[in-house]
Amino acid sequence: MRFSISLILLPLALFGEPADWLITARYLVPMDASRRVIEDGAVAVGGSRILAAGSRAEIEKRFSSRHRLDAGDAIIAPGLINAHTHAAMSLFRGIAGDVPLREWLENYIFPAEAKNVTPEFVRWGTKLAALEMMHGGTTTFADMYYFESDVAEATREAGLRGVLGETILKFPAPDFKTPQAALEYTARFIERFRGDPLIVPAVAPHAIYTNTSATLRAARALAARYGAPLLIHVSETERENKDSLAGHGLTPTAYLHSLGVLAGRTLLAHGVWLTDADMELVRQANAGVAHCPSSNLMLASGIAPVTAMLRHGISVGLGTDGPAGSNNDFNMMEEMDLAAKLQKVTVGDPAALKAVDAIAMATVLGARAIGMENEIGSLESGKKADLITIRLTRPHAVPLYDVYRQLVYALKASDVRDVMVNGRFVLRQGRSLTLPEAEVLSNARRLARKVVRQQKFASPAPGLAAQ
Amino acid sequence: MRFSISLILLPLALFGEPADWLITARYLVPMDASRRVIEDGAVAVGGSRILAAGSRAEIEKRFSSRHRLDAGDAIIAPGLINAHTHAAMSLFRGIAGDVPLREWLENYIFPAEAKNVTPEFVRWGTKLAALEMMHGGTTTFADMYYFESDVAEATREAGLRGVLGETILKFPAPDFKTPQAALEYTARFIERFRGDPLIVPAVAPHAIYTNTSATLRAARALAARYGAPLLIHVSETERENKDSLAGHGLTPTAYLHSLGVLAGRTLLAHGVWLTDADMELVRQANAGVAHCPSSNLMLASGIAPVTAMLRHGISVGLGTDGPAGSNNDFNMMEEMDLAAKLQKVTVGDPAALKAVDAIAMATVLGARAIGMENEIGSLESGKKADLITIRLTRPHAVPLYDVYRQLVYALKASDVRDVMVNGRFVLRQGRSLTLPEAEVLSNARRLARKVVRQQKFASPAPGLAAQ
Repeated sequence: MRFSISLILLPLALFGEPADWLITARYLVPMDASRRVIEDGAVAVGGSRILAAGSRAEIEKRFSSRHRLDAGDAIIAPGLINAHTHAAMSLFRGIAGDVPLREWLENYIFPAEAKNVTPEFVRWGTKLAALEMMHGGTTTFADMYYFESDVAEATREAGLRGVLGETILKFPAPDFKTPQAALEYTARFIERFRGDPLIVPAVAPHAIYTNTSATLRAARALAARYGAPLLIHVSETERENKDSLAGHGLTPTAYLHSLGVLAGRTLLAHGVWLTDADMELVRQANAGVAHCPSSNLMLASGIAPVTAMLRHGISVGLGTDGPAGSNNDFNMMEEMDLAAKLQKVTVGDPAALKAVDAIAMATVLGARAIGMENEIGSLESGKKADLITIRLTRPHAVPLYDVYRQLVYALKASDVRDVMVNGRFVLRQGRSLTLPEAEVLSNARRLARKVVRQQKFASPAPGLAAQ
Repeated sequence: MRFSISLILLPLALFGEPADWLITARYLVPMDASRRVIEDGAVAVGGSRILAAGSRAEIEKRFSSRHRLDAGDAIIAPGLINAHTHAAMSLFRGIAGDVPLREWLENYIFPAEAKNVTPEFVRWGTKLAALEMMHGGTTTFADMYYFESDVAEATREAGLRGVLGETILKFPAPDFKTPQAALEYTARFIERFRGDPLIVPAVAPHAIYTNTSATLRAARALAARYGAPLLIHVSETERENKDSLAGHGLTPTAYLHSLGVLAGRTLLAHGVWLTDADMELVRQANAGVAHCPSSNLMLASGIAPVTAMLRHGISVGLGTDGPAGSNNDFNMMEEMDLAAKLQKVTVGDPAALKAVDAIAMATVLGARAIGMENEIGSLESGKKADLITIRLTRPHAVPLYDVYRQLVYALKASDVRDVMVNGRFVLRQGRSLTLPEAEVLSNARRLARKVVRQQKFASPAPGLAAQ
């Protein structure tokens, strides 16, 4: 009798729908519209896409998989989206800081960039950043820097997903001396990388105060020609707002709107000083905002009105910004925690920006902010297989009463164990499968020594080292 | 010739001053008054005390040690001091949160404590907290909870240093039903543990709004009798200040001063709403303040005026507070980072509260805040050997330009590798030598399941689990 039952069940198990990977864990947080938490969850992956996400029982019954990963006492979650950074600045990590913004930029960052930023620097810097990002569960990042083709190649090598834009400035940058040259480079960059499975080429005019209206319009036109996203810093500081009002009679957002720059896929970084009217413009334009809480504190820019933005219906993602004195890391777990806590104290309500909302900002909302909500941000059938596992086994993760609160307020980047991007594991058991860690770190140290040698610091900070 | 030189040098090496431990690493941050960073540093330890700290060359020449630890590419720093927590609440980690303070306390915390807090609960809870604390580099913590003798025994077992006070309340607590009983217990507790190498028994009236003036005076008298420190929550919320002004015509600090409670070793937790006049009273009383940035954000209490307190000459330490919805961890590396960044944005100056000042708060200033500056807080000859090593080898730690900024803005609790308390290693290579991790975690999970079973939550949060 037992034998005959097996004979009946066997073909179902053997000839279930085929999958490449079946990933299981104690909890699954798909971040779909229901915001459900599935106990004993599973995700089936076929090629680069998610076939299904649900309970282990249901997924195991339906699929027959070539490979399996049981993450055990862990959470499966969507890969985190770092919506604003300057990855290659990893090589300037903490080179300056604890100084006012203008001094930081003019005495440290600009001279250091002018002397050091080369394609080689950008490649190793991006790899170092990618290594740190994958260790912390980030699968997609939005980047603005120089030599962006080299950023893209390093990102592909890392196996991460990147929305990448060459920074366009009205003054000479380490690679191009004019905004025209940077725009032309951007066009070639888009031609080269569009359709890439991992790279979304973007157009990235730095800000309104570092570009002419002609360049801003040209950037939008270029983005429109290719359907590419446009990335720009907006209302990061109060001074930017004041200068814009003085110079244009408009807030930075209203100024961009008046130039037609918001007409199309747009990601605004920071938005600390957005007014209610700005938020309405942003919402109407369906633009996204990358909230960068650590950076906004570190540079004393202010605390962004995130709950107000969310109330306006704006898609607000989370970003780390660069690590050269405005963070100093690429740790999205910390950004989630900080984003939630900051809104509570700012609004004066512990119920403001709950844990689940902070995770949404780092996943589904972040995906919407960068215009990729149909591809990434949640674990749902048909989306790209960008997912992570986070262990629940360290002392700081025990006990567990609520999965969302644990994720945001207790778990750390160091709890991320496995990272899959586009159906491929880039990290397993806390080890990178794509980047040679020792080689990346030794090159990072070598390039940093060069930075120290080349740089004559006006006033070296105590402990400044040559490593 | 070579032989004869060896014969001359040999006795020097063999008969250098004896030490039990010689700990070396690439950097030493002693946090002495010079705030120097020593490259290629070393600490010699004899018994429970530091014999000397300095360059490796000088220390190796002077001492002949029985044991050695070369931490390699790492920083040796003083053990971190968590100046305010409720350790055993680890078992309520994240049980509630994202709800207003009163709802949190009345619907979740108080009922959960009334039903669950027993000596067994407190022992396992303290061990879980101690495990997490040592993993994050904390060597000393100031605690206010119930069954504090059990907290003390668990702390001794962990090998951590604790300034421990039984919470005194005017309403029934899980252990004692009256403040008189709690005061009597405190006297016995002090008698039992005074002179202990690790435990500093304290007197801990919860707050002015949870105690009568008679109890507050009796608590001070008890503390004075034994020279024990007094721990109390002060000006945590604006409401506390308003109620105090309405009820006593005085701020909480001025009220305590009027009762004579500040006359003697005192540690004030939070101090979010201290006025300038309060700060002057605190400074004159030489009382310390435990700043709890995460908790103050999480519960929307406010942002404490830390830079103003420091300007007044107040010793401000750092604390995590409890993890039951006001943090939710015991991570002092995160508190340092947050404390620095919060002051920058609050003061509006990126130079406010520099990295080195944040480390001081977690070490020397914290020691002074709890009245132990002659024993702990820096790595100097004669002080207790409470030290940690923090590796510099993970991607987020590379490259390194400035040791202090790296420590505060980039390094994580997970980088802490070795922890010595009172001359004894409690953690080596990221593994606890004193507490059985698996047993602690399984007991924590067991007790948490009991909490869930016993508790009838008014509105269970999504994802509420039975682990």
